[in-house]
Amino acid sequence: MKHILLFGAGRSSISMLIYLLENAPKHKWSIKVVDAQKSMYLDKLKGISFELLNVKDELAREKEVKNADLVISMLPARFHKLVAHSCLKFSKNLLTASYENKEMLAWADEVKDKGLFFLNECGLDPGLDHMSAMREINKIKEEGHELLAFESFTGGLVAPESDDNPWHYKFSWNPRNVVLAGQEGPAKFIQEGKYKYIPYYRLFRRTELIEIEKFGWFEGYANRDSLSYIEKYNLQGVPTVYRGTLRRPGFCKAWDVFVQLGATDDNYYLEDVENMTYREFINSFLYYHPSDSVELKLYHYMKIPMDSDIIPKLKWLGIFEDKKIGLKKATPAQVLEKLLQEKWNLLPHEKDMVVMWHKFVYRDKDSNKKVETNTSLVVLGESGEQTAMAKTVGIPLAVAAKLVLTGELNLQGMFIPTCKEIYEPVLAELEDFGIIFEK
Amino acid sequence: MKHILLFGAGRSSISMLIYLLENAPKHKWSIKVVDAQKSMYLDKLKGISFELLNVKDELAREKEVKNADLVISMLPARFHKLVAHSCLKFSKNLLTASYENKEMLAWADEVKDKGLFFLNECGLDPGLDHMSAMREINKIKEEGHELLAFESFTGGLVAPESDDNPWHYKFSWNPRNVVLAGQEGPAKFIQEGKYKYIPYYRLFRRTELIEIEKFGWFEGYANRDSLSYIEKYNLQGVPTVYRGTLRRPGFCKAWDVFVQLGATDDNYYLEDVENMTYREFINSFLYYHPSDSVELKLYHYMKIPMDSDIIPKLKWLGIFEDKKIGLKKATPAQVLEKLLQEKWNLLPHEKDMVVMWHKFVYRDKDSNKKVETNTSLVVLGESGEQTAMAKTVGIPLAVAAKLVLTGELNLQGMFIPTCKEIYEPVLAELEDFGIIFEK
Repeated sequence: MKHILLFGAGRSSISMLIYLLENAPKHKWSIKVVDAQKSMYLDKLKGISFELLNVKDELAREKEVKNADLVISMLPARFHKLVAHSCLKFSKNLLTASYENKEMLAWADEVKDKGLFFLNECGLDPGLDHMSAMREINKIKEEGHELLAFESFTGGLVAPESDDNPWHYKFSWNPRNVVLAGQEGPAKFIQEGKYKYIPYYRLFRRTELIEIEKFGWFEGYANRDSLSYIEKYNLQGVPTVYRGTLRRPGFCKAWDVFVQLGATDDNYYLEDVENMTYREFINSFLYYHPSDSVELKLYHYMKIPMDSDIIPKLKWLGIFEDKKIGLKKATPAQVLEKLLQEKWNLLPHEKDMVVMWHKFVYRDKDSNKKVETNTSLVVLGESGEQTAMAKTVGIPLAVAAKLVLTGELNLQGMFIPTCKEIYEPVLAELEDFGIIFEK
Repeated sequence: MKHILLFGAGRSSISMLIYLLENAPKHKWSIKVVDAQKSMYLDKLKGISFELLNVKDELAREKEVKNADLVISMLPARFHKLVAHSCLKFSKNLLTASYENKEMLAWADEVKDKGLFFLNECGLDPGLDHMSAMREINKIKEEGHELLAFESFTGGLVAPESDDNPWHYKFSWNPRNVVLAGQEGPAKFIQEGKYKYIPYYRLFRRTELIEIEKFGWFEGYANRDSLSYIEKYNLQGVPTVYRGTLRRPGFCKAWDVFVQLGATDDNYYLEDVENMTYREFINSFLYYHPSDSVELKLYHYMKIPMDSDIIPKLKWLGIFEDKKIGLKKATPAQVLEKLLQEKWNLLPHEKDMVVMWHKFVYRDKDSNKKVETNTSLVVLGESGEQTAMAKTVGIPLAVAAKLVLTGELNLQGMFIPTCKEIYEPVLAELEDFGIIFEK
């Protein structure tokens, strides 16, 4: 009997738990979930025990970790250090879908010395992006070709059948992260051997168009620090390395209006937000005029022509409505998040969509010609609960958990899924769940 | 015999020292300057003693403070807490030209309890702006009128006779502060009763034009948090409160090119800056193209028409030249600062210019009509050493020092020069030095 302990009962844990439950009888697993709140869906998953637990409560946390054979954390990334600390103390293996940050990396030697296995970045992005990219990159290199470019785009979007708004977007992920996207620093990448930097306030204007068969056109904008992937993926000397985020065409241009206004700023509180309407919120970023309307001032300030497709998007969101915001104290980003949550909410009967697209360019060792190949993944949600996002974040982690518990995966140290021993068996099993990369 | 101790022998201290020296015999003052470096001009000022001193050296600092009757700090603002700490310990009065920050304010009660006088923000901006504005604001209120708007602009520029570049700008102040100007957060102000916010990346596009008799046109952009002046100046209920920075017309539009590129970012290091030229620096913010020139890409990206007066400004700076930057490790802001320091350097025979302009609108109590009044100050530098900047920062502080030492100014507690007891005698004496506000 092996005991799996999962920290975090959020939306992204459901598909993982279903997988673990299905595999539990065969492998003799018991599964326990702990979190500060209980999610509704847990009542439907018979065979899983749940306990309310505040991860900051050291005693309670250690009691749970001590009893586990494997620990998975789906908590917000800032809590992983607490879980990791307990895992080190009681010598337990740990899996997460979060970025391997400096705090985590500081423990790499200790993890290795104790013969433990810590696997981070094993979800969708980061996660499936690593696995699917490294499979192709290694194949190209092993065949002796010279890699010239690697580009990679991922997006969490709405499925075509539930796409009924002019933004062609709904939230399948933390709305706050969507509002703040791109604010961590400039986007950095390398193109044809030249380092390139894009500040936050130009990011949404430098998009490129990508077509995916059967699903049509998407637009991609640069995502954070692509340069860090040169080391992660062993791409030293490759002239182009670029990672981005996907939206439907037209999204970025309209989103940029909020960026340019300053409405995505999370660093200061607005004055008197308690008495403010959404219209007044928008007006607070526009110049004063005794008679011009908020609409006209916005279109003029942002140089939006009257026939632009940005206008129906803005109107549909209700930003011009004299409706009370209903927050007592808020940053601009928090006001915007509240508005968007009402509008971009994915309803229980609606479906989301995850899209990933890679481009590889290499010089063929035989023909000496440039060859481009692409791989793409499209996963549709099954419901508002079993979303494509929950599947693609949770199932890779669940499969990794199975491989560790059965002993098929037997590494020691701190890893992200960029090595063959991890990505080959994980990607192979994911195909059973419809998570298949098309060439 | 009274002993004056000055921390800081930088460029802005010279005019203050000349004033103190001239007044020393009459009032029986001895004057000592301490700093980590000795400035050349000190050798010319007979009667001032100098000692090398690292302000972080507590023992050395306390020894000096203990012997003083009055302490002035012209060090960078981050060091004031060290000086203030010693002044509190030995019960000495302290004067600075820096913003009264939270650290300083935390000592307000202690200063008062000990019967001491700490005066901050007694230079140009902050300093002369407070004094000249409060004189008018109090006059309007005392006459019974209703204040409707207060706007205030200040700029450190180049004197017309030394103005020989297309930017009409030279450094008379810390170049780093000029490069980073506006990055502290959004500009906040209130206009006709509406709170307004401008993010950094729109700041230089929302300018207004101001004409000053005999000196022509200037443009002003919003400066930091004008809302904090509502409390400082007792402007509660006044519908318009706006503060800004002055440049010559056309400066902001061209400067905005650097902002939009991301070239003013001081938060990350550029890759391989050691081998980079200025042309490559600019190119790192532009999209890749196999054949288009850096010039064309920039004009296209920034939507600059070929006949724009931005182009001669950019070319004059040499941003398109394939000249090595010559820095080993640098942020974009540091590269830009290096370039500008070479180009906007105020030479020893050249003169700078300080400009301040206030606008007051009030409803006249008798006629019930709106009345606008303006006051303006223009100070020209005497030389590259006795700059207008050094005069307008240093002399107000020196006059305040005299008033304290002679007992004419006899306040207890922590102050900025917004009260009559301070601004009336200081402004009166400043007229002898050509620092005169015209109506």
